[in-house]
Amino acid sequence: MSYQVYTSAKSSKSLIQDAINIVGIGFDSSTSFRPGSRFAPNAIREASYQMEEYSPYLDRDLADKEIYDLGNLPQQTLIEYHQKDFDTLIWGVDLSKTKILTLGGDHSISSLPIFHYLRAFPDLTIVHLDAHTDLRDDYLNNKMSHACVMRRVFENFKEDHRLLQYGVRSGTKEEFLWMKENKTLAPSKQILFSRLAQIVTPIYLTLDVDFFDPSICLGTGTPEAGGSSFQDFLDIMQMLDSLQIVGADVVELSPQIDSSGNSSCFVSQVVREILLSL
Amino acid sequence: MSYQVYTSAKSSKSLIQDAINIVGIGFDSSTSFRPGSRFAPNAIREASYQMEEYSPYLDRDLADKEIYDLGNLPQQTLIEYHQKDFDTLIWGVDLSKTKILTLGGDHSISSLPIFHYLRAFPDLTIVHLDAHTDLRDDYLNNKMSHACVMRRVFENFKEDHRLLQYGVRSGTKEEFLWMKENKTLAPSKQILFSRLAQIVTPIYLTLDVDFFDPSICLGTGTPEAGGSSFQDFLDIMQMLDSLQIVGADVVELSPQIDSSGNSSCFVSQVVREILLSL
Amino acid sequence: MSYQVYTSAKSSKSLIQDAINIVGIGFDSSTSFRPGSRFAPNAIREASYQMEEYSPYLDRDLADKEIYDLGNLPQQTLIEYHQKDFDTLIWGVDLSKTKILTLGGDHSISSLPIFHYLRAFPDLTIVHLDAHTDLRDDYLNNKMSHACVMRRVFENFKEDHRLLQYGVRSGTKEEFLWMKENKTLAPSKQILFSRLAQIVTPIYLTLDVDFFDPSICLGTGTPEAGGSSFQDFLDIMQMLDSLQIVGADVVELSPQIDSSGNSSCFVSQVVREILLSL
Amino acid sequence: MSYQVYTSAKSSKSLIQDAINIVGIGFDSSTSFRPGSRFAPNAIREASYQMEEYSPYLDRDLADKEIYDLGNLPQQTLIEYHQKDFDTLIWGVDLSKTKILTLGGDHSISSLPIFHYLRAFPDLTIVHLDAHTDLRDDYLNNKMSHACVMRRVFENFKEDHRLLQYGVRSGTKEEFLWMKENKTLAPSKQILFSRLAQIVTPIYLTLDVDFFDPSICLGTGTPEAGGSSFQDFLDIMQMLDSLQIVGADVVELSPQIDSSGNSSCFVSQVVREILLSL
Amino acid sequence: MSYQVYTSAKSSKSLIQDAINIVGIGFDSSTSFRPGSRFAPNAIREASYQMEEYSPYLDRDLADKEIYDLGNLPQQTLIEYHQKDFDTLIWGVDLSKTKILTLGGDHSISSLPIFHYLRAFPDLTIVHLDAHTDLRDDYLNNKMSHACVMRRVFENFKEDHRLLQYGVRSGTKEEFLWMKENKTLAPSKQILFSRLAQIVTPIYLTLDVDFFDPSICLGTGTPEAGGSSFQDFLDIMQMLDSLQIVGADVVELSPQIDSSGNSSCFVSQVVREILLSL
Amino acid sequence: MSYQVYTSAKSSKSLIQDAINIVGIGFDSSTSFRPGSRFAPNAIREASYQMEEYSPYLDRDLADKEIYDLGNLPQQTLIEYHQKDFDTLIWGVDLSKTKILTLGGDHSISSLPIFHYLRAFPDLTIVHLDAHTDLRDDYLNNKMSHACVMRRVFENFKEDHRLLQYGVRSGTKEEFLWMKENKTLAPSKQILFSRLAQIVTPIYLTLDVDFFDPSICLGTGTPEAGGSSFQDFLDIMQMLDSLQIVGADVVELSPQIDSSGNSSCFVSQVVREILLSL
Repeated sequence: MSYQVYTSAKSSKSLIQDAINIVGIGFDSSTSFRPGSRFAPNAIREASYQMEEYSPYLDRDLADKEIYDLGNLPQQTLIEYHQKDFDTLIWGVDLSKTKILTLGGDHSISSLPIFHYLRAFPDLTIVHLDAHTDLRDDYLNNKMSHACVMRRVFENFKEDHRLLQYGVRSGTKEEFLWMKENKTLAPSKQILFSRLAQIVTPIYLTLDVDFFDPSICLGTGTPEAGGSSFQDFLDIMQMLDSLQIVGADVVELSPQIDSSGNSSCFVSQVVREILLSL
Repeated sequence: MSYQVYTSAKSSKSLIQDAINIVGIGFDSSTSFRPGSRFAPNAIREASYQMEEYSPYLDRDLADKEIYDLGNLPQQTLIEYHQKDFDTLIWGVDLSKTKILTLGGDHSISSLPIFHYLRAFPDLTIVHLDAHTDLRDDYLNNKMSHACVMRRVFENFKEDHRLLQYGVRSGTKEEFLWMKENKTLAPSKQILFSRLAQIVTPIYLTLDVDFFDPSICLGTGTPEAGGSSFQDFLDIMQMLDSLQIVGADVVELSPQIDSSGNSSCFVSQVVREILLSL
Repeated sequence: MSYQVYTSAKSSKSLIQDAINIVGIGFDSSTSFRPGSRFAPNAIREASYQMEEYSPYLDRDLADKEIYDLGNLPQQTLIEYHQKDFDTLIWGVDLSKTKILTLGGDHSISSLPIFHYLRAFPDLTIVHLDAHTDLRDDYLNNKMSHACVMRRVFENFKEDHRLLQYGVRSGTKEEFLWMKENKTLAPSKQILFSRLAQIVTPIYLTLDVDFFDPSICLGTGTPEAGGSSFQDFLDIMQMLDSLQIVGADVVELSPQIDSSGNSSCFVSQVVREILLSL
Repeated sequence: MSYQVYTSAKSSKSLIQDAINIVGIGFDSSTSFRPGSRFAPNAIREASYQMEEYSPYLDRDLADKEIYDLGNLPQQTLIEYHQKDFDTLIWGVDLSKTKILTLGGDHSISSLPIFHYLRAFPDLTIVHLDAHTDLRDDYLNNKMSHACVMRRVFENFKEDHRLLQYGVRSGTKEEFLWMKENKTLAPSKQILFSRLAQIVTPIYLTLDVDFFDPSICLGTGTPEAGGSSFQDFLDIMQMLDSLQIVGADVVELSPQIDSSGNSSCFVSQVVREILLSL
Repeated sequence: MSYQVYTSAKSSKSLIQDAINIVGIGFDSSTSFRPGSRFAPNAIREASYQMEEYSPYLDRDLADKEIYDLGNLPQQTLIEYHQKDFDTLIWGVDLSKTKILTLGGDHSISSLPIFHYLRAFPDLTIVHLDAHTDLRDDYLNNKMSHACVMRRVFENFKEDHRLLQYGVRSGTKEEFLWMKENKTLAPSKQILFSRLAQIVTPIYLTLDVDFFDPSICLGTGTPEAGGSSFQDFLDIMQMLDSLQIVGADVVELSPQIDSSGNSSCFVSQVVREILLSL
Repeated sequence: MSYQVYTSAKSSKSLIQDAINIVGIGFDSSTSFRPGSRFAPNAIREASYQMEEYSPYLDRDLADKEIYDLGNLPQQTLIEYHQKDFDTLIWGVDLSKTKILTLGGDHSISSLPIFHYLRAFPDLTIVHLDAHTDLRDDYLNNKMSHACVMRRVFENFKEDHRLLQYGVRSGTKEEFLWMKENKTLAPSKQILFSRLAQIVTPIYLTLDVDFFDPSICLGTGTPEAGGSSFQDFLDIMQMLDSLQIVGADVVELSPQIDSSGNSSCFVSQVVREILLSL
C-alpha cells in the first residue's frame, strides 16, 4: 500500500549508492508562459501505476533494477532555496556510483543536478532534447529563467565538457546563430546519431518534454509544432543505451494543461525507458 | 519529503491503536452512472497539501492528533476481494480503541467497515448523509451495488442498531415509503438536529459527497440538484462533535469529473473537519 | 434498448393528443456570446437516464404520465427553416388538448411554439424565467436574436395576453425602463408569488436556464451572477402546479461549456419537474 | 427525427438477417485503470451525425448498406448478466448470414460475441488490433478482466481457430513470451500483411482503440505511447476488405477522457470504414 | 474594433487624471498552490465583452464613467521588476485625483499599489476581502509571497492606517490570534457592516476572488469551502458606495482552472460593480 | 502594453497600403456541427504572445515585416452584415499593394475577402487546404454555409481563375465527382507539388485548420481523421514562398474545443509562417 513512483521502487529519505535515485523538484516560478509543471513529479508517480514495468523495446523490467524514490524537495517559490535543499541532499554523495533522475518542474531546475555532475565528471557530455534553445542570457530580467538554463550550464563548462542539442525549433535568431557558432545543435536525426556514435564520455540527459510533438504530450507550457515522435525517442535511447548515462532529468510536463491525463501517462513511459537505461 | 494524506499524518502498514487510521478503497465497479471514484483517495491526499491543518471552525489542529495513513487497499475490480483484504487488515483490531476513516470509492465500500463496526458496537447509530436512499434491494442485478448499500447494512442490524438518514432527495417511490415506515429519514434540518440531540450511543458517519449541492462538489458520479451547503455540514459536525464518533467514511468523490480539481480540495477540507471530530 | 428522453417516454413521429410531446430544436445561430445550445436536447435525453423518474418534491412519477418524444427537428442554421418545420409539425393540432415541451437551442426558438400558443389561447400568460430581459428590438442587426425574443413575442400579443418576467438581472437601462413601464417584471420573489396567485388563465412557461445561478448550471452561454436556486424553482413550480400550464420550453443549456456534464443532469431534473406539472 | 447510429441506419429490436446489426454493450466494470467506456456506444452514435456516410477511401456509401441499430443491451455492472442478455439476443440467429458489430464497453465484452462466432465458424481467424496483449490468465483476481479477454478467447479455441495480434506494445515479459511461443503476434506491419495475405478463412475483427496512437484517440483508459496511425488502419482494412469479415467489435473508447469530443468523432469514422467492409 | 476592457473604456499608455485607470499585473510566481492568475487581466477583458455595461443593482452605466485601460505591465517572473515598472508608471501622479484599479495576478501584486496609496493617504483604511489571512511573516522562504501580503502592508502602516478583513476562513492558529489581537477581522457580516458604517476615511479595496464561495468562482488557485455569495458582495459594495473608494485591486482569478470560462465572466461583473463605485 | 496579434504588429483602424493587414471575422453561425470559431481571432492573438517572432524554417523574423492588426469586425450573427462591414473596410483599397490576412470564423467568411480578390486579380489561383470539399450547392438550406463556400467562390470565377484543393478527405460522392470533373483536387502531395510548380499567377491561400490532422489541432469543429502534418504544411509553404501570395485566410479554429489551449498556440505558429511568406 505504499505510494511511490513505479510499483517496484522503494522509498528512501537520502540518496542510495549503487542505485537509481528519483528526486522531484516541483518548481515552476521561472515559467514564462503557462505554469503548472510544479505538479509533474506526483502526476508521473500517480500515472506510473497503470504502466507495465516491462519494456518490450528494451526487453528489460524495472523490477530488476534498484530504484529509490526520495519524493519531492520541500516546495519553494524561489529557486535559490531549492538549490540549498538539493546541495544538502547531494552533500558527500559519490556521483560516479549514485545515479539521480530528477523530475521537474520547469527547465530551470536542471541546473541544480547538472552543476554537481559537471564537477563530478570533467568530461561530461550534456545531451539536451528540447524544442527550445534555452540559451537566453537573460529572460524577463531573470538570469535563472527556464529560457536561460543551457546558457548557465554552458558558462560552467570546463574544457572537456560538451553540449549536444537536438529537437530545437524555437528561439531567437541570435540563439540559433550561437548554436551554429558553438556547434551544439544537431540539425537532423542523422547528424545526431553520427555525433552520438562518437561519444566515449559519460552522458547526462536533460529532456524537456516539449521535445516531443505536442500531439503526443499536450501537457506542456510552451508547445511548439513539429516535434519528435516517440519512435524518435526510442531510437535515441537505443543509441544512448550503449553509452554511460550517469544522470538525467525530465522537465516541463505541466499535467493539468492536458485534462485527459494522457500526458502524465506518456511521460511515465518515457521515464521508464530512461530508468531502464540508467 | 513524505507523501501521505495531510502533512502531519504518519505512514503505517497496519492499523494503529489509540489513533485515527486512514484507509483508501478505490473501488467503483458497482457505479451505475459515471464511474471514477476509484481515484478519490489519492486525489484527497494530493489536495490535502494545500490545506491548512488548523480549522477555525473547531479551533483545533490536525498536528495535535495522532493520524496514520495506511494508503490504499490493493486494487480490485470485484468487491469480494476488497472485503477479504479489509477483513485481513482489521483482524484482531479493537475497534473501541482504533478509529478508522475509510475513503471510497463508491458507496458500496462502506459496507466493509460498517459490518465490522456493527459487530463491535451493538448499539451503533449509523448517520447517513447522502442525496440517495441507497435502499434498493437489488440494482442492475447487483446486490452489492452502491444503490443497495444501506439496505445491506440495515439487514445486518441487531436490535439496538439505528439508521438516521439526511439529505436524501432521490429514490424510487418505494424507497421513500420504506424510509417513512422505518422512520430512518430526517426530512428537515430541524428534525435531524432534534434526533441527533437524543443520541447517546456511538456513531458511525457515512458521508456520500453527493449529499452536498453539486455546485460545491462537482466531482461526483450522480449529482442531484438541491443539496446541502458546507455550513449545513459544519452545523451537523458541531452536533456530532459532542457525541462519540467511532468511525467514518467519505465516498463517491469522482475527482476527474471536476476538471478544476476543486472538488478534491473541498473534500480534503470536509475530511479535515471529520478527522478533528474523530 | 430504446433511446429517448426518460425511460418511460415513448417514441413518436407526430404530435400525440392528450399527451405531453417533447420536441428538440437544436438551433443556436442567434447566440451572441458562447454558442453550443444546439447540443442541449440530446444531452438532456442522455442525462435523463441516470435520473429517478419519481419526484419526491411532487410525490409523482413520470411512469404515470403519457409522454412522447418526437426527437429533434432537422438541423438548420437559419431560423426560418426551423419555423417551417415546426409549423408543419403543429399543423392541425389542437393545442388545448396537446401539450408541447420544447427543448432548445437558444432562446430565439421559443418564438416558434409561443406564436402558436398565442393564437390558440387568447388569454395566455407567458411566465418568463430568465437572467436577461430578451427585450432588445434588434441585436447585432438580427431581429430574431435570442436577445429579442420576448420583444417579438410581446409584439404579437392580443389584448388579453400577459407577460410575467422573473429572475432578470441583466439588460440595458432602456430594457429595464421598458419592463417598468409595461409592468412585466416581478422584482422580488414575494411579488412574483402574489402575481402568480392572481392568475386564472392558461400559462406558458419559458425557462432560460441562465435563470439559475451559474454555480448550479455552469453550462450556459451567457452566465449572470446572482441567479436563483433550485429551491426557488421548486417553489415557483409548486405555485404553477395548481394552475393550467399548457406548454413550456427549456432553453439555453449549452452542455459542452460544463465539462463535468452536471448541467445536463441538472436540466434533466428541471425538465422532470416541469413534465410532472404539465 | 430518429436517433440512431448513422443517419441511414434503421432501428430494430432484434437481429436482422442479411444485414449488419449494431449492438452496444456499455460495460466497463472490469477496467483496471480509467473507466468510462460504458459511455462509448451512445457517444459514437451522437458523433456519427456529423460524419459523411461516403468513404473516399473505399469509394462506398453507408446509404447503400443494410444497417440496423439495436441500441444498447440493458445496463449491468456484472458481466454475467450482459452474457445472458447477449445470449438471448443471439438465440437462434444464423451468424453465417447475420453480421454483428458490437460497440463496447471495455475489452471484456468482446468475449460475448466471439464465443458465439467461434461456435459458428470452426475455422475462424481472430484479428486482434490492440496496444495490450490482453493475455493475463487472471488480473486483479478477475478472470473476466479486460486484461484477460484474449486468453479466455484462446482457451475456447478449437483446432482450426487462429489468433493474429498486431499493435501490441504493452504487457508483462511472460505475455510477450506467450505470444512468441504461440506465434500470435505480428511484430511488424510487413509481417502482418504477409500473414493477412495467406488467410482464406472467415475473420472476426476485434479492435481496441488504444491500438491507435493516443494522439489521435485521446479518449481511452490505458493509453500507450507509440501506436498506429489512421493510415495504418486504412491499409489493414484494405487487406481485410478482400477477405470475409463475419463480425467485429470496437472497444475501449472512453469518451469523457477526451473533453474535446474528437475521439468519438474519430471512432465513428473508424466504425464507418468497418461497416463498409462488413 | 478596439480591444480593451469594457466596450466603453479607452486605451491609454499613461495614467489619466480625474479618471479610473485599469492596470493589469499578470504575476503569479509567488503562488503556493495552483498558479495561473497571470492570465487573469486579459481573461477579464475578453469576458467583459459579453457583459452589459449597465448595472441594475446600482442603476448606473459604465458608459457614463471616464475609464482608461492601460493594458498590462510587461511580464516579469520576479516581483521586484514589476515593482520598478509600477513605480515608473505612477511617478508624479496625484493619487487623490487619479483612481487605479489593478487586476492581478496573485495577491502579492496588491502591495505595489497599496504602498503608494499608504503614502498618499495617511488615514487610509484597507478593506481586505479574502478567504485567507495573508498574514504569514514568511512563506516558503518568500517574504513577498501572496500568503504574506497583508503582513507586509500592515508593517508599512502609519499611525492612522487601518486594516479591516472579512471573509477569512483559512490560516494558521497564529494568524487567527494575530487578527484577534490586532482587531482586524470582522467575524460576521453584521460586525463588518457596523464597522464600515463608522468609516469616514478614504478606502482602498483589495479583493481576492477566493473570498467568494468556490462554487461561483471556480477559477482560483486556493479554493476554500464556505465563501461569500454575490449578494454578500453587492451588500458590501452598497455600503462602500457611500464612502470614498480611492483605489482597488481584484486578484487571484486563475481563469484556466475553470474550463467553462464562467469565472472570468463572473469577475468581469464584479469588476463592473467596483468600477461603478470608484 | 498594447494588445494585438504578435508583439511587433501595430494597431490600425483602416487598411494600410504596402503592408500586411490582419482582420478578424468571428462569425460561426453557418457551422453545421460544433460552433465556436467566433473566438478564434482573439485566441490566436493571445497565443501569439508566447511565440518567437523568428522562424527557423524560413530564417526570417516578423519584426522585419510591416504588419498591422485591425482587430475584429463588429460581431454579427448574420453573414450579410459582415459582408457590408468588410466591403466598407476594403472600399477604395488597392489589393495589388495591400495584403490582407483574414482570421475566421467559420469557412463561410472566406468568401468575403475572396470575392474582392477575384475582382482585383483576373488570373488568381485559389489554393484551398481543407479536410472538406466545401462544395455543397446548399447545406441545411443555407447557401452561405461553410460547407458551400468553395462552390460559391467557384461560381464567381472568371475565365482565368483557378481552384487547387488539397487535403480533402470528407465529402459526398457527388462532391468528389465534381472535383474530379473540374480537376480541382490534388490527390497526393506529389501532384500538389507538381501543380504548384507550374503556377505563375498570384495566389490566394485559404486554410481551414481541419486540413491538419486533428491530433495537432484538436480545436476545430469538424475533425476528420488522417490529416496533414505540420511538416507537410511547411513543405507547401516553402513552395508557395517563391510564388506571389496576395492574400490569405485561416479559418475554423474553434479554440474552446481544445481545453489545453494548444490549438491556438499551434495556429499562431501557422499564421506566423504565412505572415512571413506574404
